[in-house]
Amino acid sequence: MQSAKDSQVRPQLTDRQDPVLPERIARSAAELRGESVEDITAWVQRRRKEVGFKVRRIPFEELDGWSFSPETGNLVHRSGRFFTVQGLRVSVGEQPDRTSWHQPVIAQPEVGILGVLAREFDGVLHFLMQAKMEPGNPGLVQISPTVQATYSNYTKIHKGADVRYLEYFTDPSRGRILSDVLQSEHGSWFRRKRNRNMVVEVTEPVPEHEDFRWLTLGQIHELLGHDNTVNFDARSALAGLYGAGASFALHSDTELLSWLAAWRSLTPITGAPVSLADIPGWTRDEYSIHRDDERYFRVMAVSVRAGNREVREWTQPLLEPNGLGVVAFLTRTFGGVPHVLVSARAEAGFSDAEFGPTVQCVPRNHGHLPAGERPPFLDLVRSAAPARIRYSALHSEEGGRFLNAVSRYLVIEATESEAPLKEPPGFRWVSRDQLAAFTRYSHYVSAQARTLLLCLNTLEVQRAGCGATRRSS
Amino acid sequence: MQSAKDSQVRPQLTDRQDPVLPERIARSAAELRGESVEDITAWVQRRRKEVGFKVRRIPFEELDGWSFSPETGNLVHRSGRFFTVQGLRVSVGEQPDRTSWHQPVIAQPEVGILGVLAREFDGVLHFLMQAKMEPGNPGLVQISPTVQATYSNYTKIHKGADVRYLEYFTDPSRGRILSDVLQSEHGSWFRRKRNRNMVVEVTEPVPEHEDFRWLTLGQIHELLGHDNTVNFDARSALAGLYGAGASFALHSDTELLSWLAAWRSLTPITGAPVSLADIPGWTRDEYSIHRDDERYFRVMAVSVRAGNREVREWTQPLLEPNGLGVVAFLTRTFGGVPHVLVSARAEAGFSDAEFGPTVQCVPRNHGHLPAGERPPFLDLVRSAAPARIRYSALHSEEGGRFLNAVSRYLVIEATESEAPLKEPPGFRWVSRDQLAAFTRYSHYVSAQARTLLLCLNTLEVQRAGCGATRRSS
Repeated sequence: MQSAKDSQVRPQLTDRQDPVLPERIARSAAELRGESVEDITAWVQRRRKEVGFKVRRIPFEELDGWSFSPETGNLVHRSGRFFTVQGLRVSVGEQPDRTSWHQPVIAQPEVGILGVLAREFDGVLHFLMQAKMEPGNPGLVQISPTVQATYSNYTKIHKGADVRYLEYFTDPSRGRILSDVLQSEHGSWFRRKRNRNMVVEVTEPVPEHEDFRWLTLGQIHELLGHDNTVNFDARSALAGLYGAGASFALHSDTELLSWLAAWRSLTPITGAPVSLADIPGWTRDEYSIHRDDERYFRVMAVSVRAGNREVREWTQPLLEPNGLGVVAFLTRTFGGVPHVLVSARAEAGFSDAEFGPTVQCVPRNHGHLPAGERPPFLDLVRSAAPARIRYSALHSEEGGRFLNAVSRYLVIEATESEAPLKEPPGFRWVSRDQLAAFTRYSHYVSAQARTLLLCLNTLEVQRAGCGATRRSS
Repeated sequence: MQSAKDSQVRPQLTDRQDPVLPERIARSAAELRGESVEDITAWVQRRRKEVGFKVRRIPFEELDGWSFSPETGNLVHRSGRFFTVQGLRVSVGEQPDRTSWHQPVIAQPEVGILGVLAREFDGVLHFLMQAKMEPGNPGLVQISPTVQATYSNYTKIHKGADVRYLEYFTDPSRGRILSDVLQSEHGSWFRRKRNRNMVVEVTEPVPEHEDFRWLTLGQIHELLGHDNTVNFDARSALAGLYGAGASFALHSDTELLSWLAAWRSLTPITGAPVSLADIPGWTRDEYSIHRDDERYFRVMAVSVRAGNREVREWTQPLLEPNGLGVVAFLTRTFGGVPHVLVSARAEAGFSDAEFGPTVQCVPRNHGHLPAGERPPFLDLVRSAAPARIRYSALHSEEGGRFLNAVSRYLVIEATESEAPLKEPPGFRWVSRDQLAAFTRYSHYVSAQARTLLLCLNTLEVQRAGCGATRRSS
């Protein structure tokens, strides 16, 4: 069946799985060369001062280019692009266990790029991280991916400034892909939003720029121990790096995928757009759209004004949660293999349920409930003894859309009596490495679980004794 | 950190990947014991006669329980369940390459179960297949999964007859999961429809029933060589069985996932429901809703009437394509590893693009176009010399929703000049085993590509010399 011409073509086959990447990742994670974490945070502080942005709450009527559509009541930009705040009627589950509610939600169908450039220096992988301003971030400037670009950005529809280093992510021939997957974003606030999370390695020299630094994974892990320092997009993009790891676990991969499939079947998520002007239980005033009982979040508007160096200025809507969140994994080690207790999370904006944290909520929304009706494991997580807290830091979510959406991210060591081997409904023990493997595929691991996965990987290094001396508590 | 109680708990870890399943699958595929394929098809023929169903086209006004909603114009059932035929405005891609159109589409948010029960007899895995009637199938009765159940079925909301063997799929403790994943269905006709595709192995004896037969994978592979014999749901559910296979390929798994991520970014799919009464270019008459140029498909209605043995009778809408389809993979073997040329398919009802066949179309829709504007590789596939055709059979799609939706499924051996190593845009060489691995995750491999994956696995057995004597041409 082979023609003469075919026999001349002798393509080289390649390993389906990169056999050396896990070792290279581990080496970068163990490496703290270069600037100390104090120097890096000082650089971020310096950038905060230099750019000198001011973010100010404004009434909706001071928004420039944004308005409430007379037809739909939705908050839209006159260009028809960026994003829209619309109303949504959501149902999760099947009768008789279906739950339905109304809420505002951000719709943004285009797929953005969250890209981190990687390069080896002296045999160690480094990652090009940016000190970038986003109006909703505490501190405004945080450590961010090399590139955060919307489709409009990268096709230059808006004729804005070119996005620096973007070409490495849009032209595959410029580098080698280490990870690349469309991931869901925050499903309680975004409807079906997904971004392309990429890590691309280059071998050629890359132009330098004062807003960017090459950091090892060890340095990034250290920075993750600091509050509000590494932004959401960086955490999400880097979470895709970790390898398949230990080949044993409490449950097989098939069992876990089956468990998620069952939850996906039981909790189908359907959403119908409704007018933002007409959401039961929500009121719009001069400054915000909020629930009458002040729970969950509000839609509001800000003006962003640059200081000395830059000449940018704009207004935009943001979503603001009503309090500090708690996002936590309970962890136990079985047969030497670290596991975390994942939940099956069906959020309003998801296509289907995803693996999520053990606990994810704003406790204030549940404060009125008796202990038995509060989210499972929340009280355990909040009252954990310091010796059980293996990781704790504040992180904020996507600062281009959310104002002060800060949660305490925790990894808590649990006992059999607290978190038994035989899981309660809606929870499963998943090894850290299984979670990493599932993160290679779209819509399996939620935004908050991806942050926790990255934090879990910082613990590995800590345990190996690297970086302990430098690590801040 | 470990409590005294913890130290008493010594959980057994398990292999994340079942180390012996691939060998057991291969053994079942090589095994043709039991009834000959002639006996099995004779059994199907006998069932066709026994059940004696008659399917008749009826005008919409003869539909019982179904009507066009005065509010939305949509074709709905009075119970609000089953499915709805609605209008959809679709856009695929980003400006300036965005394509938009209107079409009818089936909406059915609930997740059904397509489940195959497996059991070992004399050391060989057998699969419990049903001879089942669906009104849209050519021949009506085809070889089907053990269970095809909608959520309404399995929660007994409709108080219909219990679905036989359903308990093995809803109660995980009854068996061991071999595969379980939510898969997309036909994206050109269904909006965001997904079903849970399961294979569950039991060790206990299972009650027998005359409509069911235990078949080896070898027997099923043989049956796949026959036209319109194995139904869509069976092909879809069994496609999830095959293992990871060869660890080398032309592209790494990461490269292929990245390629798909890039296409997903370039071709976001957005759909907005519109009234079925008001779709530009489509007309409703007494018997159908069809395009004015008669292309693509029509919505129509049937009455289904049982003969002697059963007392069921109902009416329902179906979608009917306007001609015979062609669904094909071009295949080449690189370094001993079989590869197929996949496309990135963004269908109206998908959440995002999926790996699809090299060719998938109804040629009649493109007959008016000059050769250069017809779908890539269509002419090559249609004119392939018999010696190049490694697989060819007619298969129909989901017979509960589609009337005579028949395509010729083909696997064609290609040369370098026909299908070069350096792929044209929108196509990639993927090894058969990579395609099988991606099928374990939701929304990576399209419905038609899953059928072809199963057909590819029949070739392996053929090549190994098993079954060649029994195989029909």
